[in-house]
Amino acid sequence: MGSPDIDPDALAAIRDERVDWRDKGLPAAVFGRTVGEVADAGLDLFADGFVGPLVVLDADALEHNLATMADWCARHGMSHAPHGKTTMAPQLFARQLALGAWGVTAANISQLRVYRAFRVRRVQFANELVDPAGLRWLADEVARDPDFEFLCWADSVAGVELMTSALRAAGVARPVDVLVELGTPGGRSGVRDIETGRAVGAAVAASPVLRLAGVAGYEGVIGHADGFGRIIDYLGRLRALVLLLAADGRFADVPEVIVSAGGSAYFDQVATVLSQEWPAGLLVRPVLRGGAYVSHDDGFYRDVSPLGRRARLTDAPPLRPAFRAWAQVMSRPEPDLALLTLGKRDVSFDEGMPEPQAMRTASGQTGTIAPCRVSKVSDQHAFLVPSSPGHALPVDIGDWVGLGLSHPCTVFDKWRLIPVVRGTRVIDLIRTYF
Amino acid sequence: MGSPDIDPDALAAIRDERVDWRDKGLPAAVFGRTVGEVADAGLDLFADGFVGPLVVLDADALEHNLATMADWCARHGMSHAPHGKTTMAPQLFARQLALGAWGVTAANISQLRVYRAFRVRRVQFANELVDPAGLRWLADEVARDPDFEFLCWADSVAGVELMTSALRAAGVARPVDVLVELGTPGGRSGVRDIETGRAVGAAVAASPVLRLAGVAGYEGVIGHADGFGRIIDYLGRLRALVLLLAADGRFADVPEVIVSAGGSAYFDQVATVLSQEWPAGLLVRPVLRGGAYVSHDDGFYRDVSPLGRRARLTDAPPLRPAFRAWAQVMSRPEPDLALLTLGKRDVSFDEGMPEPQAMRTASGQTGTIAPCRVSKVSDQHAFLVPSSPGHALPVDIGDWVGLGLSHPCTVFDKWRLIPVVRGTRVIDLIRTYF
Repeated sequence: MGSPDIDPDALAAIRDERVDWRDKGLPAAVFGRTVGEVADAGLDLFADGFVGPLVVLDADALEHNLATMADWCARHGMSHAPHGKTTMAPQLFARQLALGAWGVTAANISQLRVYRAFRVRRVQFANELVDPAGLRWLADEVARDPDFEFLCWADSVAGVELMTSALRAAGVARPVDVLVELGTPGGRSGVRDIETGRAVGAAVAASPVLRLAGVAGYEGVIGHADGFGRIIDYLGRLRALVLLLAADGRFADVPEVIVSAGGSAYFDQVATVLSQEWPAGLLVRPVLRGGAYVSHDDGFYRDVSPLGRRARLTDAPPLRPAFRAWAQVMSRPEPDLALLTLGKRDVSFDEGMPEPQAMRTASGQTGTIAPCRVSKVSDQHAFLVPSSPGHALPVDIGDWVGLGLSHPCTVFDKWRLIPVVRGTRVIDLIRTYF
Repeated sequence: MGSPDIDPDALAAIRDERVDWRDKGLPAAVFGRTVGEVADAGLDLFADGFVGPLVVLDADALEHNLATMADWCARHGMSHAPHGKTTMAPQLFARQLALGAWGVTAANISQLRVYRAFRVRRVQFANELVDPAGLRWLADEVARDPDFEFLCWADSVAGVELMTSALRAAGVARPVDVLVELGTPGGRSGVRDIETGRAVGAAVAASPVLRLAGVAGYEGVIGHADGFGRIIDYLGRLRALVLLLAADGRFADVPEVIVSAGGSAYFDQVATVLSQEWPAGLLVRPVLRGGAYVSHDDGFYRDVSPLGRRARLTDAPPLRPAFRAWAQVMSRPEPDLALLTLGKRDVSFDEGMPEPQAMRTASGQTGTIAPCRVSKVSDQHAFLVPSSPGHALPVDIGDWVGLGLSHPCTVFDKWRLIPVVRGTRVIDLIRTYF
């Protein structure tokens, strides 16, 4: 019997940690109590001493998104190794794995070390790994845990040589699985043409410390403006590279071939191309990586997700935005300006501004907010202005404003401990490790 | 004898914490050792198992900047309450206080709780504070420590009423000091005119739980494009408000009047206006707040600081950029493109891109880098391109690139433990608490 997909004891240890002054926004009255105790205490966001600004996750939206994506992948013949960089939250990795995720994806060694502190059993490292110190650590980790399954990417013969040399020097206990990364001209990393991909594959197969396990890429780097044609073309080239490397006999040592693509914007296109039937005798596992679906959002992904506002998919319910920021109006210096206690270290601001959606008056009345928008976020202030000139700004000093957020990857990283709420009731706490 | 400015035992406790997998970039070989042991071990960034990406602080630049600013303030009759939001590093607060800083500035309650975990004795809260839960916590903290000195800002009678009501309900042990915030039309928070400032001052003075202690504002919100004229005007109005409130008899209860302004861009103008002689009998303490000077930068502040590249000040040596990011070239997919292992959760990207300044080949040769630039930073990748078309890109896979950074406020917050280096030798570690 093998290891579990993630270590239950390490997860339990999160709940045994103590909440303290390091935990932004949490009530001082619970400092010294354990995360588990506070998660179970039934605290209210507005009655029990939380201080703003706060960012919380909606429990039902979170569960809905986790289940929706797991179900969608299962129905479309896709494995899923959600990108853990989005949340860096092992408690969420555990939910994803319990719902059938095949593994978790990482982008760098520091992230991988966090995953491995929780003994995440299978990790896809969706990058080239050419750092000798990182490879040395990897070799140690492979030796420590015979059940640890690891795959990383390569897009150059030079990179394969660096990996080979570092892993040989470290005396790695068994070969490291590698996917050839296929890129796209003008894109990010990845070989630019199929022939270079074949050469990199050959170099991997020839290395005594590497094993060629498949092909990977990222279609999200192809501009949305370019439409689906180029994305489908690119995914077709991914397929072609798998077939050519198979024809070259490079997959002789692996029980199945991995082909991985799919951020959160085009996973439907990826499934359409990569789950098509493969030639008889070639066992292929297509693996999606999207991670932003967990919280979805009120901005970037709302627009681009196939399960977002412009849903292309009708065979699954839309994802729901799970994040909400709460910040107080601290200043109302001009008729058309209110300042919120919310800044660049609290919320994302790189792919769209926070979106005012709700308000709660100082006396506790809660409801929707009349049209207004955030025009700017500075280090410690958000600037709330009317949606259009002439509209009144519907807030007073002391009111709380609830805001939707865009781009989860730059929200999770700003909070160590995120309350999970149903309404204003806290029902869990999520610890992040950035 | 009063309390120290910051608690030496709490600082010592930082060095007793253990380094582990939560600490991005640190060598796995030191996991389990204390921060103090690792700080003193003489580790080398490139020989001892650090993994990229890394962000480090140059020890000599840091000391130079700390000393330069402290000395400048002393020579110009200015007190200094550096904004702690920049670094959230009590070890740096301790250095600032030891060099004569009058206090430390905070922007929200979560920050203040961190400061008070280290018993920072005097804190300026450079914002309106109208959160009842925050005010309740403040009242408790005031009661717990008779040496705790605290000032916050107010810019509305409504805000003064919220403060009064919350502090009365909490039974605060002694009145809380308040500065009236003066703003500027089209700016951020702060009353827009002197008469409103007088009314807010009167409301503070009339509150049984507040004490009017001075006037504050932020000149940095006045656009750089508008030149110095408007800044000098604004600072003159700050002075005028102090004089009017004094004439109104509102400062009867305080031994000295505080007037605070000054981010990192215009502290010279602030000193010019606020350290001018005040009327006989009116004891005024002008307080600067700039915090970004600690690390200075290779971008935004390099351009705007009076001790930056376009130095207006000749009576002090220029500040030096202290941050450097190190990231490895992981992919070289096109002649004019290299991808670095560096992303949005590692470095600032909101006020200018990281600036390539140095390189180190895989074999250890270190030197300057031929002209190139970062065109884009995504979640986990930085895009390195030639400075101008036709220039060759001077890096190979496996090389390390050293980069200068802009806007320290969005660099410190991405790292829990920052190596302080002399060359590539680690001589200290700075813990941040965001």
